[in-house]
Amino acid sequence: MITINLAVVPGDGVGKEIMPEAVDVLTAIAEVHGGLKFQYEWYPYSCEYYIEHGKMMDDDGIEKLKNHDAIFLGAVGNPKLVADHVSLWGLLLPIRREFEQVINIRPAKLVKGVSSPLANPSEFEFVVVRENSEGEYSEVGGRIHKGPDEIAIQNAIFTRKGTERVMEYAFQYAMQRRRHLTSATKSNGIFHSMPFWDEVFHSMTERYPEVDTQSIHIDALSAFFVSKPHTFDVIVASNLFGDILTDLGAAVMGSIGIAPAANINLNGKYPSMFEPVHGSAPDIFGKGIANPIGQIWTGKMMLDHFGELELGTKLLNIIEEVVADGFKTPDIGGSFTTKEVSSEIIKRIKML
Amino acid sequence: MITINLAVVPGDGVGKEIMPEAVDVLTAIAEVHGGLKFQYEWYPYSCEYYIEHGKMMDDDGIEKLKNHDAIFLGAVGNPKLVADHVSLWGLLLPIRREFEQVINIRPAKLVKGVSSPLANPSEFEFVVVRENSEGEYSEVGGRIHKGPDEIAIQNAIFTRKGTERVMEYAFQYAMQRRRHLTSATKSNGIFHSMPFWDEVFHSMTERYPEVDTQSIHIDALSAFFVSKPHTFDVIVASNLFGDILTDLGAAVMGSIGIAPAANINLNGKYPSMFEPVHGSAPDIFGKGIANPIGQIWTGKMMLDHFGELELGTKLLNIIEEVVADGFKTPDIGGSFTTKEVSSEIIKRIKML
Ligand SMILES: CC(C)[C@H](C(=O)O)[C@@H](O)C(=O)O
Ligand SMILES: CC(C)[C@H](C(=O)O)[C@@H](O)C(=O)O
Repeated sequence: MITINLAVVPGDGVGKEIMPEAVDVLTAIAEVHGGLKFQYEWYPYSCEYYIEHGKMMDDDGIEKLKNHDAIFLGAVGNPKLVADHVSLWGLLLPIRREFEQVINIRPAKLVKGVSSPLANPSEFEFVVVRENSEGEYSEVGGRIHKGPDEIAIQNAIFTRKGTERVMEYAFQYAMQRRRHLTSATKSNGIFHSMPFWDEVFHSMTERYPEVDTQSIHIDALSAFFVSKPHTFDVIVASNLFGDILTDLGAAVMGSIGIAPAANINLNGKYPSMFEPVHGSAPDIFGKGIANPIGQIWTGKMMLDHFGELELGTKLLNIIEEVVADGFKTPDIGGSFTTKEVSSEIIKRIKML
Repeated sequence: MITINLAVVPGDGVGKEIMPEAVDVLTAIAEVHGGLKFQYEWYPYSCEYYIEHGKMMDDDGIEKLKNHDAIFLGAVGNPKLVADHVSLWGLLLPIRREFEQVINIRPAKLVKGVSSPLANPSEFEFVVVRENSEGEYSEVGGRIHKGPDEIAIQNAIFTRKGTERVMEYAFQYAMQRRRHLTSATKSNGIFHSMPFWDEVFHSMTERYPEVDTQSIHIDALSAFFVSKPHTFDVIVASNLFGDILTDLGAAVMGSIGIAPAANINLNGKYPSMFEPVHGSAPDIFGKGIANPIGQIWTGKMMLDHFGELELGTKLLNIIEEVVADGFKTPDIGGSFTTKEVSSEIIKRIKML
């Protein structure tokens, strides 16, 4: 029996509504498997926790989470805290950093039954491989002078190690797929980091002659995500560019409520974290209509991560069938509740 | 008689095809006006020039351009030079910087007859006001170490002066429009510059109580440009975020070939530059089918800049009518040539 010991962090808002559903789906999947078991420990870490305790997680929160095989996270964010950056920086980013989750994988595809905002979308199916530990999200920088002369300086830091690592991952990924890799750059406007990024990418193309590569500036690439998303297979991007491209990818899919993501620790020392792309959606929280698909699909990425590829594929097929059969929450044009959608998924899992 | 002394820089690729057309349009417009005259001096500065002379412009290029009332630029870029950043950095960015063109204005709207890639676009009409002189495009930074330990550091520099300036412009712009202003931020991930950006924005909202404001993270904002572009009026953004949002805006309009832009010098010391959003489009260059609308619409922004608002509006109306009547190049679903489209525009200008 393989036991996977999960830290479950529903977080805020709709995270609290979709997480119990996604957990029930995982349990059902494990039962079908027979030799797999999920153990769940729930953590209340969130903005709500911050409002009550003055911190996003316990002082030994990282220590506690470390003992798990993976972290399954819902969404973080509270409208009362939007201007309070400290709170937002206190959960997702420390987890990614402390647990060396250096890669963020976010697939996007046209799902039957979800109406894309695009008029005539060709079938598309791409994956953004995002650098998740450095680049534009560095904590290095500060301010000088006060009043009208004040200046803020933000350092983006790109190491060869970190850059090669994410590109290596992306090339490997591309080798298992359609062998087409796009690098998101902006070396025509950003003078130091992006030419460096291009150089590293270029040096790696030589090691993967089977992979067809292209470099596209982030501005044009964002436009192409709208005008021709079907031309992409794997896209490798810096922390910030990956952040932008994946929300855009989710938008082009038709709803951010269905987009999955995985924050991967590569060295096996720490747990990886599985959290969907969407946020806590305070506008719909409490109505029972949050889309559980993003969280459940993220669960599928967790199955893949633990080597359960066949089961992962089965789960994704069920998700797609359920949506195609019209079991949809309002964000993708349906009138079903969170629970009705997840129950239908569980019903079909049990029929496997 | 008002004489406007223009530096005309067609640049590369399709820039060379559309510029003569746009210049003919300006001449026709001036004739209708009666009291307005454009003088043109043509400059060959471009990547092609670089390939021949080892530099993008003459050593005294900036001096020469300085003597003009404005710069009318086509497009810059040559596929032979993509990896050669020095060349690309040698024209647009120095002009913006040397001539203190600190604001970049880029409108986007749904144009009748241009099929947007969006399935059901509501009428949208927004303007991105982009900081054009600092931020992420700073030249400050460098590298340390060699080989596997190499690190590239890129400094983004945000001054209070520069940030207030672009926001002031955006608030003023919003006051003349629908009084709705969105700030593009990323203070949940970028630690120093973006909280500073938010702070400055917040302090200015108090001075413009009539303007309805919101701050949206760039990832979500990019998604909203696809899912609900009609909810925006004026958007204020940093150099990089403005760059991304405007290509995205152009994509949502249906073609980057129609999107106009203006690089504005505010202190009156130097010429402003008018260049459309699109690039040199080497893939269609030489076929006579480049869309002249982006360049001509950019000419309309130049008319506005010189206070010829009424004439500017008339020109935009003609552009929209011509497109709605089906005089379209292939990029927007027509089968007309560059020249046929511009000739139709000129014909209608003469009927004014
Ligand atoms: C060519 C490049 C430096 C430029 C920019 O990034 O500003 C272009 O993309 C633009 O938007 O005018
Ligand atoms: C909440 C925020 C810091 C985060 C990010 O920018 O990485 C989010 O947008 C995401 O994409 O997971």
